[in-house]
Amino acid sequence: MIFASDNWSGASERVVAALAEAARKGGPAYGADDFTKAVEKRFAELFEHEVTVFLVASGTFANLLSLSAYARPGGIVLAHREAHINVDETGGTEFMTGGSKIQALDAEQGKILPEALAAALARTSHGYHSGQLTTLSLTQLTELGAAYTIDEVAALAGMAKRAGLAVHMDGSRFANAVAALDVSPAAMTWRAGVDVLSFGGTKNGCLAAEAVVFFDPRQARDAGYVRQRAGQGFSKNWFIAAQLEAYLKDGHWLSLARHANAMGSRLATALRGSKRARLAFEPAANEIFAIMESGLEEKLSKAGAAFYPWDPECLPVAERPGAGEIMVRLLTSWQTTAAEVERFAELVG
Amino acid sequence: MIFASDNWSGASERVVAALAEAARKGGPAYGADDFTKAVEKRFAELFEHEVTVFLVASGTFANLLSLSAYARPGGIVLAHREAHINVDETGGTEFMTGGSKIQALDAEQGKILPEALAAALARTSHGYHSGQLTTLSLTQLTELGAAYTIDEVAALAGMAKRAGLAVHMDGSRFANAVAALDVSPAAMTWRAGVDVLSFGGTKNGCLAAEAVVFFDPRQARDAGYVRQRAGQGFSKNWFIAAQLEAYLKDGHWLSLARHANAMGSRLATALRGSKRARLAFEPAANEIFAIMESGLEEKLSKAGAAFYPWDPECLPVAERPGAGEIMVRLLTSWQTTAAEVERFAELVG
Amino acid sequence: MIFASDNWSGASERVVAALAEAARKGGPAYGADDFTKAVEKRFAELFEHEVTVFLVASGTFANLLSLSAYARPGGIVLAHREAHINVDETGGTEFMTGGSKIQALDAEQGKILPEALAAALARTSHGYHSGQLTTLSLTQLTELGAAYTIDEVAALAGMAKRAGLAVHMDGSRFANAVAALDVSPAAMTWRAGVDVLSFGGTKNGCLAAEAVVFFDPRQARDAGYVRQRAGQGFSKNWFIAAQLEAYLKDGHWLSLARHANAMGSRLATALRGSKRARLAFEPAANEIFAIMESGLEEKLSKAGAAFYPWDPECLPVAERPGAGEIMVRLLTSWQTTAAEVERFAELVG
Amino acid sequence: MIFASDNWSGASERVVAALAEAARKGGPAYGADDFTKAVEKRFAELFEHEVTVFLVASGTFANLLSLSAYARPGGIVLAHREAHINVDETGGTEFMTGGSKIQALDAEQGKILPEALAAALARTSHGYHSGQLTTLSLTQLTELGAAYTIDEVAALAGMAKRAGLAVHMDGSRFANAVAALDVSPAAMTWRAGVDVLSFGGTKNGCLAAEAVVFFDPRQARDAGYVRQRAGQGFSKNWFIAAQLEAYLKDGHWLSLARHANAMGSRLATALRGSKRARLAFEPAANEIFAIMESGLEEKLSKAGAAFYPWDPECLPVAERPGAGEIMVRLLTSWQTTAAEVERFAELVG
Repeated sequence: MIFASDNWSGASERVVAALAEAARKGGPAYGADDFTKAVEKRFAELFEHEVTVFLVASGTFANLLSLSAYARPGGIVLAHREAHINVDETGGTEFMTGGSKIQALDAEQGKILPEALAAALARTSHGYHSGQLTTLSLTQLTELGAAYTIDEVAALAGMAKRAGLAVHMDGSRFANAVAALDVSPAAMTWRAGVDVLSFGGTKNGCLAAEAVVFFDPRQARDAGYVRQRAGQGFSKNWFIAAQLEAYLKDGHWLSLARHANAMGSRLATALRGSKRARLAFEPAANEIFAIMESGLEEKLSKAGAAFYPWDPECLPVAERPGAGEIMVRLLTSWQTTAAEVERFAELVG
Repeated sequence: MIFASDNWSGASERVVAALAEAARKGGPAYGADDFTKAVEKRFAELFEHEVTVFLVASGTFANLLSLSAYARPGGIVLAHREAHINVDETGGTEFMTGGSKIQALDAEQGKILPEALAAALARTSHGYHSGQLTTLSLTQLTELGAAYTIDEVAALAGMAKRAGLAVHMDGSRFANAVAALDVSPAAMTWRAGVDVLSFGGTKNGCLAAEAVVFFDPRQARDAGYVRQRAGQGFSKNWFIAAQLEAYLKDGHWLSLARHANAMGSRLATALRGSKRARLAFEPAANEIFAIMESGLEEKLSKAGAAFYPWDPECLPVAERPGAGEIMVRLLTSWQTTAAEVERFAELVG
Repeated sequence: MIFASDNWSGASERVVAALAEAARKGGPAYGADDFTKAVEKRFAELFEHEVTVFLVASGTFANLLSLSAYARPGGIVLAHREAHINVDETGGTEFMTGGSKIQALDAEQGKILPEALAAALARTSHGYHSGQLTTLSLTQLTELGAAYTIDEVAALAGMAKRAGLAVHMDGSRFANAVAALDVSPAAMTWRAGVDVLSFGGTKNGCLAAEAVVFFDPRQARDAGYVRQRAGQGFSKNWFIAAQLEAYLKDGHWLSLARHANAMGSRLATALRGSKRARLAFEPAANEIFAIMESGLEEKLSKAGAAFYPWDPECLPVAERPGAGEIMVRLLTSWQTTAAEVERFAELVG
Repeated sequence: MIFASDNWSGASERVVAALAEAARKGGPAYGADDFTKAVEKRFAELFEHEVTVFLVASGTFANLLSLSAYARPGGIVLAHREAHINVDETGGTEFMTGGSKIQALDAEQGKILPEALAAALARTSHGYHSGQLTTLSLTQLTELGAAYTIDEVAALAGMAKRAGLAVHMDGSRFANAVAALDVSPAAMTWRAGVDVLSFGGTKNGCLAAEAVVFFDPRQARDAGYVRQRAGQGFSKNWFIAAQLEAYLKDGHWLSLARHANAMGSRLATALRGSKRARLAFEPAANEIFAIMESGLEEKLSKAGAAFYPWDPECLPVAERPGAGEIMVRLLTSWQTTAAEVERFAELVG
C-alpha cells in the first residue's frame, strides 16, 4: 500500500528493457546518439509542432532549465504558493536563474485564480525597485490534484502573454493530466499559449527522465549552456533518450497514466464511502487528499500503508480538519495495484 | 574502433542487471532506499574511512558539488589550464559556486608542478581585491593521461593545506588511476590529503553514476542543499545507487578499469612501433595522445576509427607536431576489444 | 511640502563641510585613510562594543552585505512582506546572497508577530527540499512607521537565535527609531540579540553613507570580499567615512532624527484633527500613513505637497479606506520645516 | 610625493562646490532630479550620440554593470591578463554577471594583440562545453600605461563584432587617454566600435562618480535592474550627477587630465635621465613604470614618496629587472604638483 508518492514507484519493464538495450552498445556522447535523435523526432510528432527538446534527469532541473530561458535581472516568476518550484526545490529558482524571485498567487486547489493573476499583472510598479515580471508558471496536474482545463490554461496564458510574460508548464504529472482530461498534448500546451513545458517521465514509469520542450526554438537559445554548466548535459545522453523513447512509443506513457488515474479514482470512491475519512478535494487524477480521524492514520500505517500528512493551510478555513482530524496526501502510480487500493478501502471502512 | 572517449561506451552487464533489478520494485524517494544505504556503507569500506557520500548523475556536477563545499566570496580555485572544470564545463564552477574564479597553474602532462603551486600560494595579494584562494583541484588521471603518484598528490595537497586551501580530486577516471598505480583508494585520497573526491563511474561501466565523497562530514554540511537545488537530488536515487553498488561489488570497477588500461597499453605499444605515428606522451592508463602524419588520420577515420584531434599547445614547443603532422587523443574503455586495438595497430603500421 | 520620502532631502551642512574638508586632500585608498579609522573607532564607542564596520553607499547594499554574511545554499531569510529587502530591492537578496529565498511573515504595522515567527521556525521541513532558515531580518523603524520596543526585538531575536538563525536589523531609519524610543544604540542591537545592523545615514542628513555593523568580528569574515566584488569597496572610502564622522559627532545624527520625528509628530496631530483625513496607523517617528478623501489628495498635490499613495493591503480589512478614500504615506525628514507642516495642516483642515 | 595611485587624490574644488550646492536642497529620489537630467544631456553632447547613461559610484561597478548587459549563460569575456576586471575586482565579473569566465589574452603593455584576439575567436569550440564568447573588454589607458590608438581600438573592435561579441571599454582613466591622444570621446568609442564605456571620474577629480555609457539604448534594457539590485541605484542620485556635471562642464575633466599627464611626462623625463632608475615602458599619460636599484626605493620611501612595487611578469623576459633591481609603478594625478615631481627627480638622480 504505497501511496507516499508516485516517485516511490520503480520503472516500467518496457522502459528498463529499452535502457538495457541501449546500454549494451553505447554511442556518441552528449546527444549525438541515435536514441536522442529518435526521441526528439518523437516529441515533435507528439506535440504536432516544431520543438526544441532538452533531456534532463530530474523534474526540478526541468523546471530550472525552463525558467532560466526567460530569466532577467530582477525577474519575478508568478506561481502558486505551493508550487514545487516554490516549496520543494531548495531555492533552485532563486539560485539557478540568477536571482529570480517567486511571487505567490492565490489559487484554488493549486489552480491560480484569474483575478489573482490580473492583480499581480496590474500592480503598479515603482521603477526598477520592484523588479520585472518574466514568467507565469502553471503546474498541471496541480500540486493539489486538480487539472486546469484547456480553457483555463488558455485564459491564464493569454493574460500573461499580453503582459509580456512567458508561460511555463510544470508537467511533472503531465501524463496524468492529459489522460484525465483526454486532450491532446498540443491542445494542453502551445495551442493554449504555453511556451515551455517540463515534461515528466520519472513519476510515471521512467527511472530518471524528463524533457524540457520549447515550442519556439529561439527561446531555447541558451538552454544548452544552462544545462551543460549545471552538469545535466550527460555524456551518455542516450540513458535518458532510451527511457523516453520507450515511454512515448505506442502510447505507453498514457497507458501508465490511465492506470494510475484509475487507481486514484478507486481510492477516491473508497474515501467517499468511508465514515472515518473524507475527500479534502475532488481529485482529477492520481493525487488524492483526504481528511481522516487521527487514529485511523496510525492504523493504516501499522497495516503497511505509506502516505504523508499534509498541511491543511491549503484548504479554505471552513473545510480544514476539525479537532481529532488530520489531512493526508495519497498518490497512486502506474505501479499501484487494485489489491492495494482495496486493502486500503477496507481499512478506512 | 571507438577511441573517441570512454564515455562513448555502454554500460556493463552487471550494472545494467542491478539497475533492472532495482527498477522492478522502486522504493522510498530521495535516498531513503536500501540501495543508497548499501552503497554508502560500501564507500566507507572501500575508503577505509568515515565518508559522507552524495550520489549524482554526472562528473561535471560531481566537481561542482565538491567545489561548492569550499566556495567563498571572491574565491579562487587553483587548477591545471586544461582541467575539465576550466575548459569543459561551460563555466559551471564560475556559476554554480557563486562566482569562483579558476586560476590556471603550469603543469606537465596535466600534473600541476609544485613550483607553480608554490608561486600561486606565495603571490602577495593586495587586500580584498585579489580574492581568496579556496581550493586546489587535482585531476587523477590527468586530462593528458598521466597519473600523479601518491607522493606527488601528498606533496601538492600538503602545500595547499598548509596555506589553508581544501584539496579536491577530480576522479572522473579514478578507477583507471587506482588500477594503473595499484594503490588503495585510501592511499590515493584522504591519506594523501584529499578532502573531497569526484568518484567517477560513468566512463567505466555505469550509465550515469558518480559519487562525491567527503572525508570529513563537517565539510559536507551544505552539500545536500547544493545538490537538491541543482536538481541532482533524485527522487529515484536508487537508480544511481544500484549502478554503483554493482560497480563496486567484488572489485568490478577495478576489473573494468584494468581492462581499459590494458587496451591502452597495447595501443601505446602499437604507436611506439609505428613509422607514421608516435606517442605524444607516455601514457599511464587508458588515455593515449599521439602525433601522426596528416594523411593517416583520414585513413583511420575512413576505416571506422573514431577519435578526436587535440590542440598541441599542451606540449612543450619542441615536441609539438611538425609540418604535416597532427595530434590526436585516443581513449580506450572497459568495452574496447583487443580486436579493435589490433585493427588500429595494423592501420598505423 | 516635501513628504515624499526622507531620501528627497539634501545633506546637512556639517556633513557637507566634513566631506569638503576631506576632499581637499584625499588620502590612502580603500579605507587606509584617517577618516575611516576614526569612524570605526566612533562606531565602537557608540555601540559600547567591539564592532567590525563596513562603509557602503546605499541602504540596499548595506542590507545585502549584512545578509550575505549568513547566506547558505538553499537559505531562507524571514522578513515582513513589505520589508524593503522583499519589495524594494529588485531581488537583490535573491541575487547577491547567491539564491536566498525571502519568506514573508505576518506582521502588524510591519512588526513581525511572535506567533508568525514561531510558526515559521516550527514548520517541519522535508529534508533538503524546503531549504534552510538562515536569518531573521527586522526593520527598525518598520516600513509602516512603527518601532519595535527593545523587549520586542529581544523576544524575536531570542526565538530566532535559539533556532540557529542570525538576526539582522535593517536600520535605514535607525536614528529615528533610537530617537523615538530614547534608548541606547547598544540596547537596541547587540544587547537585544542583533548580530548585524544596517546603520543608515543617507535618509537622515548624509549624501550616501551607510554602515554595516557586525557585533561579532568572526561573522564579518567574508564581508570585505562581498563588498569589493560588488563594487562598494570604494577607493576614496573617506568620502563615506567623512560623512559618517560628522554625522555621529556630538550626537548630530540624533539631533537630526529628533527634528524629523518632531515634524512627524506635528503632522500626526494635524491629521488627528482633520475632518477629511485620518491616521491609518499611530506613527512612532517620522513615517505617517493617512487615509484621506480622494479629492483632498489632488488639492494637496496642486498646492505643492509631494507624497505617495500607499497600497492599503497592509491594513486589516476593517480599517482600509472606504469608497472615496485613499491611503497615502507622508515622510518628514531632518530638513522638513515647521512651516511646511503647518501649511499641510491647513490644507487638510 | 604621492605616486601610489591617482585614487589617493582628493576631489577638485569645482566638483566639491557643485556637490555642496546640490546637497543644500536635495531633490526627487532615484534619478528624477535635475542634476541627473542635466548630466545625461551633457553626456549625449560630449559623445555626439544618443546615449543611455547609468551613474554609479565605483569603477569596479561600472565595469560589472557594463559587462552584465552582454552576459549569457556560459559566457566568456576576453580581456588582458592584468585587466582590472581580472585581477582587481575580487571575482566581481564571475559573480555579478552570473558566472562569466574571463579568458586572458596576450598583450603588449596591456594592449591586446590582434593575433591573440584572432586566435581566441578562431578556436574551435566543442559544443556547449566550452561556453560562448560574449564580450571583448579593452582598458583605455591600459593598466600598464599605454594608450590604444583609435585605429587599434577600431581593429580589435571590428574583429570582435564580426564574431558577434560586444565591445566594452574600461575607461577608468578615459580622460587621461583622451587628453593624451587628443581625440574626441566619440572617435575613441562608438565610432571605433565600442558598445559600452565605463567612464571614470573618481581618479581624476571626483569623489566617487563614474558613468556607464551605452551607445545603443536597446543594450541597456536591463541595466537599471542590475544597478538597483546591486545597491548602486542611489536614492540621492544627484550626489553623483552633481559631481559629473561639474566635472564635464567647460572641459574641466580634460584640464585635470592634461595636468596629470603633464606631471607624468615630467616624471618620465626624470627617469630617462636617471642613472639609478629607468623607464620600464614608454608611458602614454600618467602611469609610469620604472625599474630602479633596490636601495633607491627605500630611500624614496623614507623621503616620503608613496608608490607600489609591481610584478615584472608583465615585461618581456629580457626587459625584466636584473639582480638588485625592482620594478615600481608611479601614478600622477590632477593633484600632483610640479614640486613633488621635482623633488622625486632629485632623489632618483
